[in-house]
Amino acid sequence: MITCDTKRMEDKIVTFSKFGDAGHGGITRYSLSPEAHQARDEYVKRMKAIGANIETDDMANMYATLEGSEKGLKRIVMGSHVDSVKNGGNYDGVLGVLTAMEVLETIEAEKIPHRHPITAMIWTNEEGSLYPPAMMSSGVICNQYLPPEIAKKFIKENMLASKSVLDKTSTFGEALDKSLYKGDQKNRLNPDDYMAMFELHIEQGPILEDAKKEIGVVTCVLGMFNYRIRFYGQSDHAGTTPMHKRQDALFAAAKALCYLHEEIDKLGRPELVYTTGEILCHPNVHTVIPDLVDFSIDVRHEDPAVRAKVLSIVKSLDGKTIERCKGEVEMAWTRDTVYFDKELVGFVQESADELGLSNQTINSGAGHDAQFASYMLPTTMIFVPSKDGHSHCEPEFTTVEQCTAGASVMLNAVLKTDKK
Amino acid sequence: MITCDTKRMEDKIVTFSKFGDAGHGGITRYSLSPEAHQARDEYVKRMKAIGANIETDDMANMYATLEGSEKGLKRIVMGSHVDSVKNGGNYDGVLGVLTAMEVLETIEAEKIPHRHPITAMIWTNEEGSLYPPAMMSSGVICNQYLPPEIAKKFIKENMLASKSVLDKTSTFGEALDKSLYKGDQKNRLNPDDYMAMFELHIEQGPILEDAKKEIGVVTCVLGMFNYRIRFYGQSDHAGTTPMHKRQDALFAAAKALCYLHEEIDKLGRPELVYTTGEILCHPNVHTVIPDLVDFSIDVRHEDPAVRAKVLSIVKSLDGKTIERCKGEVEMAWTRDTVYFDKELVGFVQESADELGLSNQTINSGAGHDAQFASYMLPTTMIFVPSKDGHSHCEPEFTTVEQCTAGASVMLNAVLKTDKK
Repeated sequence: MITCDTKRMEDKIVTFSKFGDAGHGGITRYSLSPEAHQARDEYVKRMKAIGANIETDDMANMYATLEGSEKGLKRIVMGSHVDSVKNGGNYDGVLGVLTAMEVLETIEAEKIPHRHPITAMIWTNEEGSLYPPAMMSSGVICNQYLPPEIAKKFIKENMLASKSVLDKTSTFGEALDKSLYKGDQKNRLNPDDYMAMFELHIEQGPILEDAKKEIGVVTCVLGMFNYRIRFYGQSDHAGTTPMHKRQDALFAAAKALCYLHEEIDKLGRPELVYTTGEILCHPNVHTVIPDLVDFSIDVRHEDPAVRAKVLSIVKSLDGKTIERCKGEVEMAWTRDTVYFDKELVGFVQESADELGLSNQTINSGAGHDAQFASYMLPTTMIFVPSKDGHSHCEPEFTTVEQCTAGASVMLNAVLKTDKK
Repeated sequence: MITCDTKRMEDKIVTFSKFGDAGHGGITRYSLSPEAHQARDEYVKRMKAIGANIETDDMANMYATLEGSEKGLKRIVMGSHVDSVKNGGNYDGVLGVLTAMEVLETIEAEKIPHRHPITAMIWTNEEGSLYPPAMMSSGVICNQYLPPEIAKKFIKENMLASKSVLDKTSTFGEALDKSLYKGDQKNRLNPDDYMAMFELHIEQGPILEDAKKEIGVVTCVLGMFNYRIRFYGQSDHAGTTPMHKRQDALFAAAKALCYLHEEIDKLGRPELVYTTGEILCHPNVHTVIPDLVDFSIDVRHEDPAVRAKVLSIVKSLDGKTIERCKGEVEMAWTRDTVYFDKELVGFVQESADELGLSNQTINSGAGHDAQFASYMLPTTMIFVPSKDGHSHCEPEFTTVEQCTAGASVMLNAVLKTDKK
């Protein structure tokens, strides 16, 4: 079996960790920032060094391609993003770009024959940290293939006008226009010129580490729904209103939140994840009884039947009265489970097995650009373990050996795709 | 029995409701605003019309005094405030000024003999809506008589530098300097020149209305404590972190909040009031497990033994682990119950009885300027009913008859004080 090179992989991880280094183990590297451009410059330098041809599209997505031995064949693309969240780690996103580069460097160094052109790609603004929303470029590029309810979020003009969270006057469109990497729309990823896409990513959870597996064979991105739950009370003075007269929306919401945990846990599905991450309270003054509390619930599971059961529990709060406060439930958004291409998933599993790497199938609870790309062309993902399951924070860590093992799996899966 | 005049009372309520009229039943009349100055101008006009002498002090508190028949006697003062909260009602504060004016107008119209000078007073900035904190002027004027832990909040220089919540560059001191009603420090309310203080106020709660009583004979301002309760969790990705690994600070806080209600209610004290009015959640993003949630608890009861029992329940959360999150409890502030002067309380009750007005003793859950004044000189309060218990909102309402009954009680209680 052909494998990638640990030393070369380590050199890339160390080098790219300097671009946006926050000084205490992690990085802040917003999309299209000077730090992100340093990472792109380094990618260009290294990809040119192996003779790859560099193209960019109108969303500043970048494509470095090694030509194949046969003319007229579609490309195989690997890629991820180089932007990070604020005080993020050195692996989320960039590792998918570095392993894609490593695959091309291995092909070039080992003179591995391949029929199809093979591309290492950078997606622009996956995190959406500076310019929301997340997965902006894949949303725009894959737009015409997405389900209508998702597609309508990703109208290019809305994206271009997305305001910086740090400087409300500066827009994504302005940052894009200033970038030397803004290119031509004709270079966009598309199903006529590309036959398959691979994205390697850290797991961002503890499942592989706990199971002592080196590779996660990703089969799907979990379906999910996001709802808002609201309780309406009556604001009155904290000192003058007897308890039995109160309509305390925060007490109602706290009871509802505990009720949701109890009822959802009764379903007995340990693989189900749900999160009440955001809460808003009005007027939110310590001497006033709250009259409106609104919180979010995010529920993810592969099986629509399980999601439906959870949804019926959530919806049972709609119109329900708790502590004299009326409940209201409103959908924010939902998405179905996105299944990756079975043949590509098989190639990943075979490659891991042939390389003697312990592996298991796993689903992705987080969203990734590959999820949008999969609506357009055959796509799949490869996960490597996250130490302690941490992600979107500086302690994010995956060993060089685990990263290189992931690159070797991607290399072999790409070569299997090339032989089809 | 001498009584006040309903028609004259109604005219004042209608007239003063125009100053800061928000157009839908209530007012916004911040302290020292143009609207508050209109109210002060009207007070001056009406008090001069009955021959009262007007003085102002360095905090722009205003004193309109009718001289008494004997020279050298101390004054009896009645008063409250004319400032309101944002979109407040037409009664909180201003009714105590209007009834004080009505008492003087009745004394003048009916030529009622009195030995002591009698004063109708306006306190500046009771609400603290534009320039925090609340009860600013009474805190400053009564400062040297307050318990040290309360007094240290009310250092005059801090008050003067209090920033406007609407315009962070403008301070209370600047607004005070611009006011034509800023006067001399020697005119401040003080125990050498004043023998007693009365403040009439709406109840701001439903107790009198529910009990069908016309007058509340206020005996004390409830002791209280305000604590912060905090839970520390671990932020992780909503889609990738299994439920059994989570440290969800919002779930922990919701459980703690429900636990507090259960345990405090077990004490079986229906007169106890407690409020969890404010909650802060970090990072408060719907796709992230919260790692820090902090909420307030405000507890009020006359009896320190009951407050101590509640406090031990609150403190039981300190260091407690709920859903793998550690709890922390921190004191924000406390105050003991402030008892009003027994003789003045008796005069109020006798007056109500003699007037044939149904009445009951009641305590004040809310803070008032009278509470600070009571540390300096004999003080008490009179409550009139609040429709549906509403306050600090536009539906605030008390009938003209109820307002006039309150004024009549204050008039007779003042005359009893005068005869001492």
